[in-house]
Amino acid sequence: MIYVIKIGGNIIDNPDKLNGFLGHFAAIKGHKVLVHGGGKVADQIAKEMGVIQKMVNGRRITDLATLDIITMVYAGLINKNIVADLNAKGAMAIGVCGVDANLIIADKRPVADVDYGFVGDIKFVNGEILMNWLGDGFCPVISPVTHDGLGQLLNTNADTIASSVALAISKFSPVRLVYCFEKKGVLMDINDEASVISILDEKTTNDLKNQGLIHSGMLPKIENAIQTVKGGVDAVFIGHADELDLLIEGKTGTKIISK
Amino acid sequence: MIYVIKIGGNIIDNPDKLNGFLGHFAAIKGHKVLVHGGGKVADQIAKEMGVIQKMVNGRRITDLATLDIITMVYAGLINKNIVADLNAKGAMAIGVCGVDANLIIADKRPVADVDYGFVGDIKFVNGEILMNWLGDGFCPVISPVTHDGLGQLLNTNADTIASSVALAISKFSPVRLVYCFEKKGVLMDINDEASVISILDEKTTNDLKNQGLIHSGMLPKIENAIQTVKGGVDAVFIGHADELDLLIEGKTGTKIISK
Repeated sequence: MIYVIKIGGNIIDNPDKLNGFLGHFAAIKGHKVLVHGGGKVADQIAKEMGVIQKMVNGRRITDLATLDIITMVYAGLINKNIVADLNAKGAMAIGVCGVDANLIIADKRPVADVDYGFVGDIKFVNGEILMNWLGDGFCPVISPVTHDGLGQLLNTNADTIASSVALAISKFSPVRLVYCFEKKGVLMDINDEASVISILDEKTTNDLKNQGLIHSGMLPKIENAIQTVKGGVDAVFIGHADELDLLIEGKTGTKIISK
Repeated sequence: MIYVIKIGGNIIDNPDKLNGFLGHFAAIKGHKVLVHGGGKVADQIAKEMGVIQKMVNGRRITDLATLDIITMVYAGLINKNIVADLNAKGAMAIGVCGVDANLIIADKRPVADVDYGFVGDIKFVNGEILMNWLGDGFCPVISPVTHDGLGQLLNTNADTIASSVALAISKFSPVRLVYCFEKKGVLMDINDEASVISILDEKTTNDLKNQGLIHSGMLPKIENAIQTVKGGVDAVFIGHADELDLLIEGKTGTKIISK
């Protein structure tokens, strides 16, 4: 079994939480891949550098100055600090982004109603290279920067990278995708941590969605997870970063399966 | 033959020169490693972020804020843009720093007269991993960030990384080390580009040094090169980045040999 584990910005922003999480991650036996998002550091540095973050409908526009900051912070600062920490814990991590070894090729998002700038939609993930690295004993740590293969870097959603990486690996091996965040799972009631939905498939999701029982913010993540398990990934787990060891075994959090 | 090629800041600071250089680099047949320095981008960003660069005797002190900037700029911005460019040119590059796969372990420089801060003196380079990557068809692109193996990143001189990498590779294969900069080689007269010294060994270097005929700024680089060839690297070449193809064949620039 290979685990593809994604951590979000809220964990990255908190050094103690991150350190604790990385300890659990390093302790996982067997093959594992870490995908990390950005957190607030990029926003802070943009502010310090006087780069104004343009937003449209709550989404960030990646202009060239923002792309540079994202490349610096995600592929440099965050990635290398995570890798140094993991290697101190014995994980033999190697930090890469989609550019390295042409790991992830993306298309610059076409301009429709909104020009999102240098944002990449994933076209191809080289699962074979990931398998070779895992086979050689390395733990890939992937930051969410991709490229178009023609020299242009692109900012790409880390959740999407995690699911695309899991799908690419699923062609070669059983694989579980794990999203770690600061909630115990998908909650029926967002104010009640005890209301975790333990298992979801497509039908249950649609039923709950139609009854308005899934928080709209979680819906894209769950629908993406359902596509991922339908595409060949064994299961997707969504849960709290503090409970990684239980989460990857399906003993806590929400498990999403194809049927 | 494996080529370890180092480019300095002056080339990195000039997009046209860098693009031309990377074209020549990508066209080199066979196995090659690129080591890159920093350039002025880190200084610019430090200025924009209001991080004051402390200097002692003309050397930068790497405090924590500076280390973060170096990690962002060297391991992120510069490294990933070079890799994207090389991969567009078909080089199958993979960008790493010393942290990745524990490639380069360093000791934090002990505090003597001066506390240089988070500066690393190289203790170990894993040549075996580099050989495996080269054998798998990858071209490693190394940024000058290392770590102590205990989670602490360290800023390390890129010239020293290049020579240490070449020495580590020399245990497995014939290797040439190439320093590319903006002069045609080691000059007898710094104002005369035609005064390139074509070949140097330890004795000639000492003779010229005693006669005051080698520019003091070049002396550390040459003395380091002599140690490198004495340590097992076939030859060190120093010359102009625009002439890479001739330089690696010893047809221009300065060639440094053990005897």
